[in-house]
Amino acid sequence: MDHLNRLHDLFKQFPGIGPRQAKRFVYFLLGTSDAFREALAKEVSELASRVTICSSCYRYFDSKGLAAHACSTCKDPNRDQESLMIVAKDVDLDAVEKSRVYRGYYFVLGNTLSLVEKEPETKIRAKELVLAIEARAKKGLKEIILALSLNSEGENTREYVEQFISPLVRAYKLKVSILGRGLSTGTELEYSDAETIKNALLGRRQETMM
Amino acid sequence: MDHLNRLHDLFKQFPGIGPRQAKRFVYFLLGTSDAFREALAKEVSELASRVTICSSCYRYFDSKGLAAHACSTCKDPNRDQESLMIVAKDVDLDAVEKSRVYRGYYFVLGNTLSLVEKEPETKIRAKELVLAIEARAKKGLKEIILALSLNSEGENTREYVEQFISPLVRAYKLKVSILGRGLSTGTELEYSDAETIKNALLGRRQETMM
Amino acid sequence: MDHLNRLHDLFKQFPGIGPRQAKRFVYFLLGTSDAFREALAKEVSELASRVTICSSCYRYFDSKGLAAHACSTCKDPNRDQESLMIVAKDVDLDAVEKSRVYRGYYFVLGNTLSLVEKEPETKIRAKELVLAIEARAKKGLKEIILALSLNSEGENTREYVEQFISPLVRAYKLKVSILGRGLSTGTELEYSDAETIKNALLGRRQETMM
Amino acid sequence: MDHLNRLHDLFKQFPGIGPRQAKRFVYFLLGTSDAFREALAKEVSELASRVTICSSCYRYFDSKGLAAHACSTCKDPNRDQESLMIVAKDVDLDAVEKSRVYRGYYFVLGNTLSLVEKEPETKIRAKELVLAIEARAKKGLKEIILALSLNSEGENTREYVEQFISPLVRAYKLKVSILGRGLSTGTELEYSDAETIKNALLGRRQETMM
Repeated sequence: MDHLNRLHDLFKQFPGIGPRQAKRFVYFLLGTSDAFREALAKEVSELASRVTICSSCYRYFDSKGLAAHACSTCKDPNRDQESLMIVAKDVDLDAVEKSRVYRGYYFVLGNTLSLVEKEPETKIRAKELVLAIEARAKKGLKEIILALSLNSEGENTREYVEQFISPLVRAYKLKVSILGRGLSTGTELEYSDAETIKNALLGRRQETMM
Repeated sequence: MDHLNRLHDLFKQFPGIGPRQAKRFVYFLLGTSDAFREALAKEVSELASRVTICSSCYRYFDSKGLAAHACSTCKDPNRDQESLMIVAKDVDLDAVEKSRVYRGYYFVLGNTLSLVEKEPETKIRAKELVLAIEARAKKGLKEIILALSLNSEGENTREYVEQFISPLVRAYKLKVSILGRGLSTGTELEYSDAETIKNALLGRRQETMM
Repeated sequence: MDHLNRLHDLFKQFPGIGPRQAKRFVYFLLGTSDAFREALAKEVSELASRVTICSSCYRYFDSKGLAAHACSTCKDPNRDQESLMIVAKDVDLDAVEKSRVYRGYYFVLGNTLSLVEKEPETKIRAKELVLAIEARAKKGLKEIILALSLNSEGENTREYVEQFISPLVRAYKLKVSILGRGLSTGTELEYSDAETIKNALLGRRQETMM
Repeated sequence: MDHLNRLHDLFKQFPGIGPRQAKRFVYFLLGTSDAFREALAKEVSELASRVTICSSCYRYFDSKGLAAHACSTCKDPNRDQESLMIVAKDVDLDAVEKSRVYRGYYFVLGNTLSLVEKEPETKIRAKELVLAIEARAKKGLKEIILALSLNSEGENTREYVEQFISPLVRAYKLKVSILGRGLSTGTELEYSDAETIKNALLGRRQETMM
């Protein structure tokens, strides 16, 4: 197999990329500069040596090749010591950070659990979560926020984690909360399902009238 | 112009129907039974004489040709006299009723207000709303729920109505609330905008741990 | 069941119309004028009495309530007596007429045949086709054009009809042709399947160079 | 800017890739093996040194680092010396090769020409095309096939190239042909535009009846 095909085959394994777009990538790279290709090769090659999993929240972060163990968020003493947000993946953590409304710490489960998952404790970072809660509890943790997507996998993961951490929650007298539900940006009432309308109604907010 | 074209032209004016689907409707009707066509013609023809706008909530309802003034919901004395939900359109009211979680009364504005609306008071049923609130206030109304979609038109309509009814709200000491916001069914954290994440976080719910 | 629901139920049976759009149709009609609704009711009601199936090509046409038997195309003596185009449905005939490139006569099969069709001769107008070809043959017919869509049902229908009419074709010494194949408007070479490229290549046209 | 962001920024420049999918690529790579990343880095890095533009047809091909000038197709003496197919891009050539119906040689223009192109002769490989035709003419070339997409850019390119090569075509007494037009795979008659129906009708094929 030749070079073009080998690169094509690698790109085909990228998430969401079919044979046609993989081919486009190859021709795109052929049309870019040597500098672009060299930069890409370098970044890809050094990725593993420079990017580490944080020993505290388990997100990926750029350790710049140093023997860093914790990411900048986990090392930041000025964040809210009282709250820990549990998310499924790095991309969820990124979305929350981007919204700039949360100031506490995080924990990345690494996966969600499907309804037919047989060994859920091996699919997500279960033991690591126990250690993380214990460590945070010693530093003043009061609330665990379960920030999972509102779909069947997210709900299933949330329920499993709630059960799994309940001994710790009782032991350390923690509060556990889940993300609020109702209308999200762009939601049209006409097209909303009964569950969303129910949540929106139960969670309605009183307005302060001037 | 012939018969087929005249019917085609009428169907083309239906919402969301282009020339092609209009033509399909005509051929579909040609392929149905006499009974189907007669039923359709009868229902369309009698629509205006049998369907009336409720004098209380302004939704359309089947008055069966009688001189009824109020729809069955408005006439039902067992609904919650303390709450009035303001919606933009009949379809929104239908969606809320279908969710079976609301037991109070309704008011249909008839429209939403765009940001550039010059005469908002003529676009929605403003005067009728005043009369409806006054009538409900005499029967024990305590809370007005603004149930508008979470998009720019919905938000704009909500803000206009809040301001517009504020004298009445003060006079009758009413509570005004808006639908809760957060994750709606199917929302994935990864793809949520900052506003939705913010709402979901601020409106987070404490779980009761067993 | 009330009036709104009855009309809603009728619209739900229209092709491609779900519950939501059916509801929109009802509210749309409520918002139109009496004149619009009366016109629609009248056209729908009179459809069967005024629109007839042509006894020659089997398309629907507006007979204006008169005892007409043939449509204007079939009655037009100035069309090309030498060719007969066989199409699956009225909409196909409409599409060809709209292109203004064909001047011969038509025959509408009424349906296409799926690959698992057990009694194809009852699904399409088989006997009527025999009579139509015989009638046209007496008036100078020389070519039958099979104008079916290029998908599996269209191909299957084409093959069945070819076999079915072959005795007549031999008896009257007719030519049978099928629509040309190749690039259609908008086709991009990059995304074309092998069959289309093959057809486009085999059917390539020589350019006259100036 | 850190490592994750630098890689993210490079992927964002890939065709059709937005910020979200670029981020997914980064996390995907973090989740793959060292071997996968090393292979990708190597292929990307060596791409330019190993992949060359063929000096004859101007497609990209794997020269394996050797000083090869012509691709395997151009070097294959068993292909049809009498025909040369002109395509816009490498992906078009790939699509034609995949269909396995063409056995002649190719020439890749490198681009298509938009209707407002001011200097078409600099946008496509115009001078190279002249040389390629002259070289092929000496080896028995008889027909040039213009294989462009059937959209406005493709048509514009085809017309420009036809004019541009007309002196050569006359000088060498070549035949110029364009891809056949009509129904392409999946085309439904009902939804076809007048141009496609016209092409399908003009290019109709006579069937051999058994």
